[in-house]
Amino acid sequence: MTFNFFNVRKLCTTTALYKNVQLTKDRFPNLKRGSYAVVNSTDVDYFTNIVGVNNFISGEEVKSYNEDWLKSVSGFSKYVLKPKTTEQVSSILKYCYERGIAVCIQGGNTGLVGGSVPVFDEVILSTSAMNKIISFNKLSGVLVCQAGCVLENLMNYVQNEGFIMPFDLGAKGTCQIGGNLATNAGGLRLIKYGSLQGSVLGLQAVLADGQVLDCLNTLKKDNTGYHLKHLFIGSEGTLGIITKIAIQCPNAPKFVNASFIGLESFDKVLSFFSLVRKEFSGSLSSFELMDSVAIKSVQKNIGIKCPINDNLKFYVLVELSADNNYINHSIQEFLEKALNKEIILDATVADQPSLIQNLWKIRENIPESLLRYGYVYKYDITLPHENFYEIVPDIRRRLEKLDVKAVCGYGHLGDGNLHLNVATSEHNNEIASAIEPYVYEWTSKYKGSISAEHGIGFLKSKYLKYSKSNLEVDLMRKIKNNIDPKKILNPYKIFPQNDSN
Amino acid sequence: MTFNFFNVRKLCTTTALYKNVQLTKDRFPNLKRGSYAVVNSTDVDYFTNIVGVNNFISGEEVKSYNEDWLKSVSGFSKYVLKPKTTEQVSSILKYCYERGIAVCIQGGNTGLVGGSVPVFDEVILSTSAMNKIISFNKLSGVLVCQAGCVLENLMNYVQNEGFIMPFDLGAKGTCQIGGNLATNAGGLRLIKYGSLQGSVLGLQAVLADGQVLDCLNTLKKDNTGYHLKHLFIGSEGTLGIITKIAIQCPNAPKFVNASFIGLESFDKVLSFFSLVRKEFSGSLSSFELMDSVAIKSVQKNIGIKCPINDNLKFYVLVELSADNNYINHSIQEFLEKALNKEIILDATVADQPSLIQNLWKIRENIPESLLRYGYVYKYDITLPHENFYEIVPDIRRRLEKLDVKAVCGYGHLGDGNLHLNVATSEHNNEIASAIEPYVYEWTSKYKGSISAEHGIGFLKSKYLKYSKSNLEVDLMRKIKNNIDPKKILNPYKIFPQNDSN
Repeated sequence: MTFNFFNVRKLCTTTALYKNVQLTKDRFPNLKRGSYAVVNSTDVDYFTNIVGVNNFISGEEVKSYNEDWLKSVSGFSKYVLKPKTTEQVSSILKYCYERGIAVCIQGGNTGLVGGSVPVFDEVILSTSAMNKIISFNKLSGVLVCQAGCVLENLMNYVQNEGFIMPFDLGAKGTCQIGGNLATNAGGLRLIKYGSLQGSVLGLQAVLADGQVLDCLNTLKKDNTGYHLKHLFIGSEGTLGIITKIAIQCPNAPKFVNASFIGLESFDKVLSFFSLVRKEFSGSLSSFELMDSVAIKSVQKNIGIKCPINDNLKFYVLVELSADNNYINHSIQEFLEKALNKEIILDATVADQPSLIQNLWKIRENIPESLLRYGYVYKYDITLPHENFYEIVPDIRRRLEKLDVKAVCGYGHLGDGNLHLNVATSEHNNEIASAIEPYVYEWTSKYKGSISAEHGIGFLKSKYLKYSKSNLEVDLMRKIKNNIDPKKILNPYKIFPQNDSN
Repeated sequence: MTFNFFNVRKLCTTTALYKNVQLTKDRFPNLKRGSYAVVNSTDVDYFTNIVGVNNFISGEEVKSYNEDWLKSVSGFSKYVLKPKTTEQVSSILKYCYERGIAVCIQGGNTGLVGGSVPVFDEVILSTSAMNKIISFNKLSGVLVCQAGCVLENLMNYVQNEGFIMPFDLGAKGTCQIGGNLATNAGGLRLIKYGSLQGSVLGLQAVLADGQVLDCLNTLKKDNTGYHLKHLFIGSEGTLGIITKIAIQCPNAPKFVNASFIGLESFDKVLSFFSLVRKEFSGSLSSFELMDSVAIKSVQKNIGIKCPINDNLKFYVLVELSADNNYINHSIQEFLEKALNKEIILDATVADQPSLIQNLWKIRENIPESLLRYGYVYKYDITLPHENFYEIVPDIRRRLEKLDVKAVCGYGHLGDGNLHLNVATSEHNNEIASAIEPYVYEWTSKYKGSISAEHGIGFLKSKYLKYSKSNLEVDLMRKIKNNIDPKKILNPYKIFPQNDSN
């Protein structure tokens, strides 16, 4: 009767459509390269000695490391180093620090904000060869591993022990746990298991000068001094290179079900969300919103049929997971009541893995279906629940005279995280400037976050001011300058540059 | 059918027994006062103007603010300021920073490590007049309040809305939410709701120079820049004064039950814990251990009867909370199986509030019962589950020739947090030096934490090295010096002094 929790959701297989990637330095001509040393043949010898010939990449093979997954930015680094151990990372950084060589840190390179590829010719340090599971404690559920482990591999590993990872992403087949921490990844289980900051018990990081900071605590409670690990979670490789991780895995739930529900208005969606939280607080593992434009896009462009009345304005996907099967009976009764009271208009419930997977397919195929229009402007924002959807019709009105294929809103309503997408046939500067910085100003007005889970990276650095005050940025700079005074770690990322336009 | 979750556990009413508190400066004669300005009459006028006559305390009334709850340390400050607003805190700190006046930050003053009272003549800034609830969002469960709100008041407030606070402490009737954050309080619900670091969405803090850092995010997801709030959570007032807080409250569970269980060995306790986690992972809200010495102490010194066979070696209190009453049936069936397999030897289950409260009384009265012996050496450590209890018999052997009344272990086994207590008739240096630093060395050897939830404060600063490496302490110092270069905030706390012996 146990439920295969992991394989319900399909790995997102979308590949971006744009093949010729303009160099970042050409796209942003006023951006200046920092005064870092240029790698010479002596450096190459040194690096090769440390990582070995097989883990030193140069030539044509470097190309894929220079470009991001969305093919929107590209650096022109000549070298990729793939250390296998913390000691090798330490030796590399010690050397780079002394020589003043800039380093770009790359995990699975699945980010959407240009954070994991070089901007100029930074040496790329890929964590992908640090992919060992170090230990798993069956009693405490604590997993310790190297930073380059692929998330899906870890999921499969702990699943065999009756546990799950406390987070799940579309990119799980490629993204690495180190990158997940470095970007404080959110994903599909946050409403149940909370932010990564709560699940990470400890980490080991190599500082800019090569010193190894060992906060690899495997204990749930430690109140001795400042909680330094939190500095590295979400700092996108600018403060240190995370090399090892200890993470608290929850026991796997035994029963899972999913409901696909149609509603007539966003007000009803909020009322319904409130009722679901009240009734199933501890069991609620996802509450995903999709508007009619998103559903139509999936139907039309991918050919997946909506399992309920397809003429409604809003749809939500509710996933519950629990230790007993009482939830199945309970959700059916609950939905019947909601139907009778006309809070919801239509619903279907699935409690078998294949049926649940079918419901998830609709939600998971939205990004892919929108890309089929040609080009997509993607925004990842958090807004208060009350204002969560307002921006979608607002942007629709704003763009109504322009050549736009679809404006839609979907995402993790349970966490207040909206994916606002504008699909067009091709990239168009007029449309771009009609959306930006308008979206960020709007988000800022409601005290939202301009980057809920994707981070700032390179591409959003100039918009950081919409979510962070000058004092916050100053404090961040102080910390950065203190820990990495030569600023060799992931330069041009997070902090606004003089000109990144 | 809803369950009054909050009133199950009684506020800890123990008061310490020692009335004449030696001044800290006399107890640690080699400790040197920092070169801070001494408050003069001009300063007094300035402070009085800011907070008003009623919130400026001087004279005899200051005494209770100078002494900690355990009556183990005492400063000799002459003045207590009770600002009502962030702006007043800002004005006070700006002035103190310019003048070089040291400030001790005090919340409910319920700490056990001398962190909330002055060491010398620091001005005491009490947050107790900042006690307003600012907002509560019924949809998201986000509470925003001032730092001086008493935890129990917040519990009662959110309970009326169908929510609970994500943590609970014995000191809830006195401790303040700001102090809870400043010390990263743990408590009785951590196993279910995790560390405070995961539940705090945002905070506002006043920096040493009076600047107001506003990270008062009320959103679940925000990946824009470094997560600065985590610097302040657990930094014990040394980096800033927390003035406002946004915290994510979970929906209240509808059903709660508690089981009191007897076992014959610690191995069986661990096996049982593993089974409980597997069976009730999402519902498990407490897993508390008590050894036979602790139970005998409660029976003998308080007169509370053990509800099951009182001749067993170990007892655990398991609390489950869930959204449906299936757990009641489920735990009974589960315990019967465990009895048949002789994993456990005796058990009783309670699902009514008064009965649950009776079971909790045993656990809650352990500290008080031990104090009745005369004096108690208290240690609050985290250890790996495998080694959790080993230290108790080890210390027992070590002290067997000395005049010791009881050596017992109890605490939050679910979180790996052991309260090791040694009761004697009176304080005795020979016994003290037989325990310390032995306990800390032992804990360090197993990579445990020498302070699981109580923090470092003043009293444990010299032991910080047993849980933190030199590099970690260096990095902490860098951050401290950067944010508070004149070191006026809570001096002599956390960081080891030249001589705090």
